[in-house]
Amino acid sequence: MDVAVIGANGGIGRKVVSRLANAGHDPIGVVRHETQFEAVRERGGEPRLGDLEGEFAPALEGADAVVFTAGAGGDTGWDKTLLVDLWGARRSIDACVEHDIDRFVMISSYRAGEPLAAPDAIRPYLVAKRCADDALRSSSLDATVLRPTTLTDGAETGRISAAFESSSEDGGEISRANVAQTVVACLDTETVVGETIRLFGGDTPIEQALDPNE
Amino acid sequence: MDVAVIGANGGIGRKVVSRLANAGHDPIGVVRHETQFEAVRERGGEPRLGDLEGEFAPALEGADAVVFTAGAGGDTGWDKTLLVDLWGARRSIDACVEHDIDRFVMISSYRAGEPLAAPDAIRPYLVAKRCADDALRSSSLDATVLRPTTLTDGAETGRISAAFESSSEDGGEISRANVAQTVVACLDTETVVGETIRLFGGDTPIEQALDPNE
Repeated sequence: MDVAVIGANGGIGRKVVSRLANAGHDPIGVVRHETQFEAVRERGGEPRLGDLEGEFAPALEGADAVVFTAGAGGDTGWDKTLLVDLWGARRSIDACVEHDIDRFVMISSYRAGEPLAAPDAIRPYLVAKRCADDALRSSSLDATVLRPTTLTDGAETGRISAAFESSSEDGGEISRANVAQTVVACLDTETVVGETIRLFGGDTPIEQALDPNE
Repeated sequence: MDVAVIGANGGIGRKVVSRLANAGHDPIGVVRHETQFEAVRERGGEPRLGDLEGEFAPALEGADAVVFTAGAGGDTGWDKTLLVDLWGARRSIDACVEHDIDRFVMISSYRAGEPLAAPDAIRPYLVAKRCADDALRSSSLDATVLRPTTLTDGAETGRISAAFESSSEDGGEISRANVAQTVVACLDTETVVGETIRLFGGDTPIEQALDPNE
């Protein structure tokens, strides 16, 4: 599968590109600057320029699926949260609809389900993520929304804990490597289409966590 | 009709409260501080406390319709744009759905249809407004989205120019007084339900501008 990773140079994005390549997919690494091309190639991806605030849609050409893991990051202002995390996601969704790219995996955030229940400092971020998630869920795309809790640079264990929306299950931090592996597994798991799933550290093999009835 | 005005102490909100009272409606002025109660009463409204970032839904009790004209304003950070203009609007919509308040008039902004086509400085604001508009339009409510262009403190002439979504018509600034009068007229105009309408200064009587086939 040709999979475009939007935000391919981010903490999760880099790992998603390499895991996709390892799994036999053809990752397209969408980045904002040509200086990031080499890093995408090193991980087995085809680098392409895409600016979520500018020229963007052509970067998705030929993709069968899109993974959105772009974000303005913590060093910019909330204006960039609006423009990148929210509107950039909206533009990505719209581009997929327009170009008949049906499959979309969104990297959201654990507390996006209830922004005002979170600490003050992250509420505006969670509003942006939640609204992006809702736009995806109400789109015509085959969507999966992943909401990992606190991210770490820990090892890839291939084991996680996953809580579907109907579950109140809670849990602790999860490594970016395990999140990336979960993204790849989602692309092969029909039953997660239409689902919003919170992700924690855990002991369940990823495929089983994503498809508990299998 | 009992009409709750969210943001009743704002530039448009104050005028909406007084026009509603003059038209024989019973306006409920939802404000954030008790110090604003007297100003609502002076305009013929029943003041109620409602905090879009806190305790809010009870302020809408008994309302038949809601007008959303709250905004964080230009003196706060973009975090407040996310929390008030966007999430506050979402909470208002959700509260209406929950309390069976069917009619909702949103005061949006002229360029919200295409945020990235606007000048840099207002793009993040327009993203928030657009996403709030879209949440309303995809809700089950009887919604009207009004997108006035540059606002002035000019006189109430009772005449405007209105461009429905299919129209590319453009125009110049409009007074807050004429916007407020347009809001009141919308509540009596069945045909604007489901419509998104850009508002400009103009020479057409408001009722005729809102219902050109009448």
